[in-house]
Amino acid sequence: MKHTISILVENHSGVLARVSGLFSARGYNIESLCVGETEDPSVSRMTVVATGDDRVMQQIVKQLNKVVDTIAVEDLTGEEYVERDLVMVKIKANHQQRSEVIEITSIFRAKVVDLGAESMTIEVNGSEGKVGALIDMMRPFGIVELVRTGRIAIGRSTKQEGNPNG
Amino acid sequence: MKHTISILVENHSGVLARVSGLFSARGYNIESLCVGETEDPSVSRMTVVATGDDRVMQQIVKQLNKVVDTIAVEDLTGEEYVERDLVMVKIKANHQQRSEVIEITSIFRAKVVDLGAESMTIEVNGSEGKVGALIDMMRPFGIVELVRTGRIAIGRSTKQEGNPNG
Repeated sequence: MKHTISILVENHSGVLARVSGLFSARGYNIESLCVGETEDPSVSRMTVVATGDDRVMQQIVKQLNKVVDTIAVEDLTGEEYVERDLVMVKIKANHQQRSEVIEITSIFRAKVVDLGAESMTIEVNGSEGKVGALIDMMRPFGIVELVRTGRIAIGRSTKQEGNPNG
Repeated sequence: MKHTISILVENHSGVLARVSGLFSARGYNIESLCVGETEDPSVSRMTVVATGDDRVMQQIVKQLNKVVDTIAVEDLTGEEYVERDLVMVKIKANHQQRSEVIEITSIFRAKVVDLGAESMTIEVNGSEGKVGALIDMMRPFGIVELVRTGRIAIGRSTKQEGNPNG
């Protein structure tokens, strides 16, 4: 099962190595990981996506809680949260293919962020499903380069309330 | 100086721990790091932002090249690239403050992704500067939670060509 774990840590050198070490020590591969500063520059938030059985993941969460620079750990799996992923993909596209790419881009509410004579770079953000679907549409053109943030997630305000943007 | 390093790696357990270990061994803090799958699921791309002097950063790049699962390392610093950052920020806002928040959101082309009786969650992506400016505008409302991907970057198609979206 895919787990999304949100970890609040002191922004110290070495925290990332310790956290990622906890996963690799158990042979668990991290599918994606983002770490960035929060509103307080001394505190960072990591979002880790890893696939594994629930029991081992519970152990990892316990171990994460023991890391000295950890402030809080939350396994969002099973909770209600908003998830987002951001990708930039550079594809092969000459002037004849441009309008087709722009058409797809506009359907996905994606954006052309760079243009060359033989290539275009598209940016899209949204759920993993949406991002994955756009990547699949771009594949036939030929992907030159792809860079992806991986998932970030934030808990919903109240579990019962709606979600304006899906 | 702030360096943006793009690393293509085999998607194996332990790679992230080794890469982050290289930085922390030299006492260099990683400001942000993203790692996600590329178009080929067996290959991941990491984008690391770290501040440090050029000489030590060159050494780190050399060391990164020696890590067995590394396919390619590129220090984008000084190159022309498109950078993006994605943030979700949950702020305190009751029904009286909602329209003010929506106004700011629309100016930044940001999006309200979740709404509660006493809170709102805003999503924005763009350059670090733009994302930072939105966060500053949200601060007076009271930030409840903030999660940020950190920077991803992709080289421009051709150094001379324009950039449609800044």
